[in-house]
Amino acid sequence: MSKLLNLLIRGATVVNADREFRADVLCAGGKIVEIGENLEAPTNTRELDASGAYLLPGGIDPHTHMQLPFMGTVAVDGFYEGTAAGLAGGTTSIIDFVIPAPQEPLLEAYHKWCGWAQESAGNYSFHVAVTWWDETVHRDMGILVKEHGINSFKHFMAYKNAIMADDEILVNSFRRALELGAMPTVHAENGELVYQLQQELLAKGITGPAGHPLSRPPAVEGEAANRAIAIAQVIGVPIYIVHVSCIDALNAIIRARTAGQRVYGEALAGHLVTDDRGYQDPDFARAAAYVMSPPFREKKHQDALWQGLQSGHLHTTATDHCVFCAGQKAAGKDDFSKIPNGCGGVEERMAVVWDAGVNSGKLTRSEFVRITSANCAQIFNIYPRKGAVAVGSDADLVIWDPHKSKTLSAKTQFSKGDFNVFEGRTVRGFPATVLCNGKVVFEDGQLMAERGAGRYIERAPFTPLAAPLWQAAAEAL
Amino acid sequence: MSKLLNLLIRGATVVNADREFRADVLCAGGKIVEIGENLEAPTNTRELDASGAYLLPGGIDPHTHMQLPFMGTVAVDGFYEGTAAGLAGGTTSIIDFVIPAPQEPLLEAYHKWCGWAQESAGNYSFHVAVTWWDETVHRDMGILVKEHGINSFKHFMAYKNAIMADDEILVNSFRRALELGAMPTVHAENGELVYQLQQELLAKGITGPAGHPLSRPPAVEGEAANRAIAIAQVIGVPIYIVHVSCIDALNAIIRARTAGQRVYGEALAGHLVTDDRGYQDPDFARAAAYVMSPPFREKKHQDALWQGLQSGHLHTTATDHCVFCAGQKAAGKDDFSKIPNGCGGVEERMAVVWDAGVNSGKLTRSEFVRITSANCAQIFNIYPRKGAVAVGSDADLVIWDPHKSKTLSAKTQFSKGDFNVFEGRTVRGFPATVLCNGKVVFEDGQLMAERGAGRYIERAPFTPLAAPLWQAAAEAL
Amino acid sequence: MSKLLNLLIRGATVVNADREFRADVLCAGGKIVEIGENLEAPTNTRELDASGAYLLPGGIDPHTHMQLPFMGTVAVDGFYEGTAAGLAGGTTSIIDFVIPAPQEPLLEAYHKWCGWAQESAGNYSFHVAVTWWDETVHRDMGILVKEHGINSFKHFMAYKNAIMADDEILVNSFRRALELGAMPTVHAENGELVYQLQQELLAKGITGPAGHPLSRPPAVEGEAANRAIAIAQVIGVPIYIVHVSCIDALNAIIRARTAGQRVYGEALAGHLVTDDRGYQDPDFARAAAYVMSPPFREKKHQDALWQGLQSGHLHTTATDHCVFCAGQKAAGKDDFSKIPNGCGGVEERMAVVWDAGVNSGKLTRSEFVRITSANCAQIFNIYPRKGAVAVGSDADLVIWDPHKSKTLSAKTQFSKGDFNVFEGRTVRGFPATVLCNGKVVFEDGQLMAERGAGRYIERAPFTPLAAPLWQAAAEAL
Amino acid sequence: MSKLLNLLIRGATVVNADREFRADVLCAGGKIVEIGENLEAPTNTRELDASGAYLLPGGIDPHTHMQLPFMGTVAVDGFYEGTAAGLAGGTTSIIDFVIPAPQEPLLEAYHKWCGWAQESAGNYSFHVAVTWWDETVHRDMGILVKEHGINSFKHFMAYKNAIMADDEILVNSFRRALELGAMPTVHAENGELVYQLQQELLAKGITGPAGHPLSRPPAVEGEAANRAIAIAQVIGVPIYIVHVSCIDALNAIIRARTAGQRVYGEALAGHLVTDDRGYQDPDFARAAAYVMSPPFREKKHQDALWQGLQSGHLHTTATDHCVFCAGQKAAGKDDFSKIPNGCGGVEERMAVVWDAGVNSGKLTRSEFVRITSANCAQIFNIYPRKGAVAVGSDADLVIWDPHKSKTLSAKTQFSKGDFNVFEGRTVRGFPATVLCNGKVVFEDGQLMAERGAGRYIERAPFTPLAAPLWQAAAEAL
Repeated sequence: MSKLLNLLIRGATVVNADREFRADVLCAGGKIVEIGENLEAPTNTRELDASGAYLLPGGIDPHTHMQLPFMGTVAVDGFYEGTAAGLAGGTTSIIDFVIPAPQEPLLEAYHKWCGWAQESAGNYSFHVAVTWWDETVHRDMGILVKEHGINSFKHFMAYKNAIMADDEILVNSFRRALELGAMPTVHAENGELVYQLQQELLAKGITGPAGHPLSRPPAVEGEAANRAIAIAQVIGVPIYIVHVSCIDALNAIIRARTAGQRVYGEALAGHLVTDDRGYQDPDFARAAAYVMSPPFREKKHQDALWQGLQSGHLHTTATDHCVFCAGQKAAGKDDFSKIPNGCGGVEERMAVVWDAGVNSGKLTRSEFVRITSANCAQIFNIYPRKGAVAVGSDADLVIWDPHKSKTLSAKTQFSKGDFNVFEGRTVRGFPATVLCNGKVVFEDGQLMAERGAGRYIERAPFTPLAAPLWQAAAEAL
Repeated sequence: MSKLLNLLIRGATVVNADREFRADVLCAGGKIVEIGENLEAPTNTRELDASGAYLLPGGIDPHTHMQLPFMGTVAVDGFYEGTAAGLAGGTTSIIDFVIPAPQEPLLEAYHKWCGWAQESAGNYSFHVAVTWWDETVHRDMGILVKEHGINSFKHFMAYKNAIMADDEILVNSFRRALELGAMPTVHAENGELVYQLQQELLAKGITGPAGHPLSRPPAVEGEAANRAIAIAQVIGVPIYIVHVSCIDALNAIIRARTAGQRVYGEALAGHLVTDDRGYQDPDFARAAAYVMSPPFREKKHQDALWQGLQSGHLHTTATDHCVFCAGQKAAGKDDFSKIPNGCGGVEERMAVVWDAGVNSGKLTRSEFVRITSANCAQIFNIYPRKGAVAVGSDADLVIWDPHKSKTLSAKTQFSKGDFNVFEGRTVRGFPATVLCNGKVVFEDGQLMAERGAGRYIERAPFTPLAAPLWQAAAEAL
Repeated sequence: MSKLLNLLIRGATVVNADREFRADVLCAGGKIVEIGENLEAPTNTRELDASGAYLLPGGIDPHTHMQLPFMGTVAVDGFYEGTAAGLAGGTTSIIDFVIPAPQEPLLEAYHKWCGWAQESAGNYSFHVAVTWWDETVHRDMGILVKEHGINSFKHFMAYKNAIMADDEILVNSFRRALELGAMPTVHAENGELVYQLQQELLAKGITGPAGHPLSRPPAVEGEAANRAIAIAQVIGVPIYIVHVSCIDALNAIIRARTAGQRVYGEALAGHLVTDDRGYQDPDFARAAAYVMSPPFREKKHQDALWQGLQSGHLHTTATDHCVFCAGQKAAGKDDFSKIPNGCGGVEERMAVVWDAGVNSGKLTRSEFVRITSANCAQIFNIYPRKGAVAVGSDADLVIWDPHKSKTLSAKTQFSKGDFNVFEGRTVRGFPATVLCNGKVVFEDGQLMAERGAGRYIERAPFTPLAAPLWQAAAEAL
Repeated sequence: MSKLLNLLIRGATVVNADREFRADVLCAGGKIVEIGENLEAPTNTRELDASGAYLLPGGIDPHTHMQLPFMGTVAVDGFYEGTAAGLAGGTTSIIDFVIPAPQEPLLEAYHKWCGWAQESAGNYSFHVAVTWWDETVHRDMGILVKEHGINSFKHFMAYKNAIMADDEILVNSFRRALELGAMPTVHAENGELVYQLQQELLAKGITGPAGHPLSRPPAVEGEAANRAIAIAQVIGVPIYIVHVSCIDALNAIIRARTAGQRVYGEALAGHLVTDDRGYQDPDFARAAAYVMSPPFREKKHQDALWQGLQSGHLHTTATDHCVFCAGQKAAGKDDFSKIPNGCGGVEERMAVVWDAGVNSGKLTRSEFVRITSANCAQIFNIYPRKGAVAVGSDADLVIWDPHKSKTLSAKTQFSKGDFNVFEGRTVRGFPATVLCNGKVVFEDGQLMAERGAGRYIERAPFTPLAAPLWQAAAEAL
């Protein structure tokens, strides 16, 4: 059994966030225990020849929704399927979301999600959503941070009449996050405008998937991003904007960062390479498959997102992996606003970003590591346990073959979804071997995911990245 | 009596928005009837020698609150006192605000204000505030536009638990304004943040006027301006931002205008020349006298506002004239959030803007006319009846003496207030003579205001300035 | 003969820069002598029925090169042909360029151009280029301003080894312009970079017209615009940037204007509606026909230019009309850098801008007047003699039929060129009748241009538009 | 002798660019050989107790001018004095400048500087200036890169009639740098404008030091920075802007970086904390002591520079250490343009940046390491040999006592200068012990600098930081 063995990876070019170097890497007990040239293999050690390949920290996807109950149905990739698909693509950890219904106690929801997640084949952690507000929410946020390893809270500014957080909730929750040393995160879309536009479009008879992007134009996202950032600025808390899809939202981030504010932004692999033409597909199922929020955008927005990653205005890449099949999407056959929102991607993210980012000359390999693992690990305070090839770090590693080509397709994916937003895209650069917690879980195209082998990642509050804000908060008390 | 006479103004340099020229101007029947060189005086004509002076369109102050019931008291300058003070400074028209309490029918409030305003010595019109929403509000907006000459609606994004409009109200009201050809206007401050900051400051024991600006930092205004503009963009309606006081809000306007959006911005004379040091005055009465919202700001914001006027990103100058005396301000002696918000200025605006804008070399005289009357008249669709020295225009005129100096002071003002935010400022350039509706109402420092002589100004919808939006709206229906 | 008659235009909607109104307009002696409702026709008056039409100020094209000797050949439209073509499109005045060769005395060149221009059918004026520097240039600039009605000087930042002005020339000439009350204008492209790119492209074997835009990317224009504006800022002089073609240059203007600087920008009709695909045409003659500098750009730049016109960041529309036929363009058959630079457009500008700007809902009709005549007249200080429908103004007028459609084509143009960059474009909105100096020169598609009938327009220095700068300069002396 | 000993630093909190951790650090043979908890001390090892302190990579000052012959005199701090002063402040390496006179062969100048630098007590490297151009310069750049460990070339856009590089030089040199994998750097000030302003000021009788900043306003720097960046963009080479002192230049960097360009910016400790009031000092010697270029600026520029460091738009901190004494400065007693430009700072940089940056809550400690060593090491490709506390790195280390306070003064400095731009500033946080090449060189306030002990740092071309550009260049060939 691979899990009993030490592993010695020989001859790779190790790529970290700050630099590259040739070295051998020895893993034991689920950790990296030695890095150096010409290491001697202890007994009971399997040697992996990685010459000509890169050795990267395992990918972290900070935005997935496995098994999500949403819009009357449940995402088909559960925690096992979803994390297994991730492993097959070099993503060894995810941060999923606990989403309490309004009035549902946060801890109750947290425990429900923890139960589901025990199936995970890869490592996992949780952001917890704040969808309503009273004193018990205030209290439970504290318990989650202090007792359960949660250090980030999510706010949906969209989804009116459901889980939308209005300004009052945002202000209260951000204030509480500051006290706790936790990171507020937001889904930035103005829910009132989306609702108004949906009603207008439906009234005009625009009921198909093409109505979806029309109901969520970039201005709607830009406004919400700007608002959340302004609230964070006034409260004095850092903030993380999930799935930045457009120039408008990116510019809100750039303005704030340029003024010295601690703002972090996430781009989805899908938004980076896929434009909005899919919504025009005359086939409902194909068009509906692209329905997610924020929607796919015109090409100019993709150009801007890449520039955001190059310039350090955006920090992480994720997927919002949330898979619904054609039968589920059909719920919105006569009303686009009822199509369950969500697409896959956890399996393809690393390869898509490498191919479109590194092969194209947009990014260095070290920058690739930053935006696929290291930055996320720093923002959510699990660095260098995750996100680095370093002695003492978890042995979540990817031996990356820069020459391996693959054509992405729903037919060959491990995810249970019936669609692939990258369908037909050929990427060069793919994992040869993936290690999770020191075990080989993917090798030569074979997935060896084990149900339940994933570990919950506790995350401490007060990430050093935002140290000045915590210090300022402490002084202000 | 001057009102029976024709008036012939001789030898002035007429200044209009587009250019200057020497001419004589003949007024009869309350109108300008002839402009030319060496005009012959009809019988019964008083001649006014204006050589060496400029002849300007009468000022329009698009933002006043005469007799406003607010925060438990009533502004001391009623419509007579306030408009009379305006006349004494060259402002011959105001646009005041009808502010219904939540649940109060709009028409009821409108008629109440109309009653108060009959005392006016100068001309007046009304913006009507939308402070709540249901179908009757939707209906009454239509009646006000079609039957009562209203073409603009105001929204307060601040004043939580009172007249604050949330996003739902904004979206509905802006949508309705578009149908009606009316201009939405907003007081841009995020009321939730102001409320949160007020609570935090008071909890820390910061209860004096110095807490007021701390509870309303620029980010609070910038956020709201950006949000209102984004909503207007998505709805496709023009928008007018009142009392832009800071870089943050100005930048939101600049971004939108640069993208071609029809956004208009107003600066207050007070914000243009007065900084925030007044709040530090150890004397409560003096510090409280500066309490208005948005508050006075650091000097760099004033620099930016002037640049906004120079570049055409800001369009009008106003005052938010709303006068409370020391006794009234004392209501907030132990809690700055209870100090009635408001300052004067209707009497000083023209002179202050001329002195700081034209004498300093920031603005041309034509630009002065634009920002004190012509732009306002165009935005609110009363041009060239107002805002121009042209045949057929109302004879609201100011003979402006560029050499006359005056030191501004509460002691010499016509307003009933006991404070002057420009106290001690010496301005060069002041009205020699002011005509309103063809009558001399101010001359050689003497005010001849007549109670009730002011006329209500009906304003038609669909200002040509925003023609493409109305056209787009009509096509979309 | 029409020239002896008075003309009375009945029933038009007059469109000026500030507003529209219905009126009759009487012209006599080459001037507008009366405007009003139901005017009585004097004897000897021809009446023109303009009901249903708009009456606009005659167009002014501030950027043409008639009869230009350039790159070894001479533009085929001389002053007669070029101005006649302008009249056929509603443009009654042009501002052409006197371009001295390095070391050629400015006055000598000026008189040479004046001689050529005596053939003009339409009115004309001149910018004079400063292509070299010594004390005689300094002196001649003064003579041109004081004795010859010149108030603007042009600087080419491109065309290395020919007429390129380096920083030393720019600094000296701008400084001199300030003293004289003259407006510096610049062709903004970094000539060193263009030269370097040309050499690199040719060295790689890219010799065809497709190399032309590659040798002049937007960054090259943006840099030069930014530099010229910075020099103007430091010197304290206004500045006018000709043919702004791209986002990079526009942004330089926006930044400066936003900071209150007096900067004016010009867009070409061609750049507004034509993209860069023409350079890919496999037919050399067709591809070469598009060769002008700056080149046509990707579509996103056109979107930005329209936003610039909407927001008032750009002020005028022009053409850079400079026509070379296929035989002339063939000089660059083996080397794109030798293709004579230039395209037509003086005849189509008004219709193209109306159709793409007004019909599309981007601009109001008053804004159309601003960007086709009024702003130009103000910037170059001939307002309201030109650029306004006003009593006393020159009777340069266009009766504009908003319903008339025309398909633009080289086959039907009056210009002598053999190509039309708008070939095949159908526009709606076209001149029904054009008056120049009070005479009908175009009517029902018939051109009645008269060789030599055009008048030289003297322009006084110290345009009031930039008054604060002249005042500041005077004070600094 | 300390140099024979191993050194074991116990109990420090190691601060690297990416994180902090507690560890012991063992140095031997001038290198770091082991990092871990509770290390065992080899024989012949001195142990240093660093508990309660931080262990930082030795500072690198990428901008000094030791012994510079300039403006008719020679800087008083030679390589020994200057590097010794650096060691006393925690700066263990400098990058100085080889500045050939126009027409002087680059290699000749290089060898001259190498000779001078052999006196150095600290480590050193060189940027080489390109002040003229012909084929020999092109050739010598190659020799310097390939044979002498030079990977950066400097260009002065100011100093007309001396070492100013015009656009032709910039374009040629940047192009050559791209081929060689070298980094172009620029001093960004428009020399023509400076010259013009100097002449105007002197002509007006403004001859004292107060004229210096007036002759170099921010626009002059912003223009040049924008131009250099645009040239780099078009050529496709990375670029490094030295001593960014103002908003205008910073904004040029921000714009380019936001668009994905590889641009790096340097701030001087002096510019970060010192404003421009010193030039008003009535005492000539004191006012002249502040004369350096770019000059000190108004406070708002300092705020912006800090935001630049926070947001990652600026990357390094330096000093432009170039010390002239009062007697030398007196050369400009009657003409500010003749005052030798230069100030000190190499000794104070680390403490000033720590105090104003970290203590104030602007920066994290890891960010401090980035901007004082790690980023510089990455940009100039000596990372992780320099700029990191890592096994294998040079033992250039600072034990940083965060509690130690010191009042900076010319009286107590090691530099030979007679002035200190930070005079009287008390900083908290100072080196307790400094190691250079594994030897203790500063301890308890005692400097143990050794003449000639500094080592020349060879730097390889093609820094991985700009990898995509080198790759693109290689592909384009």
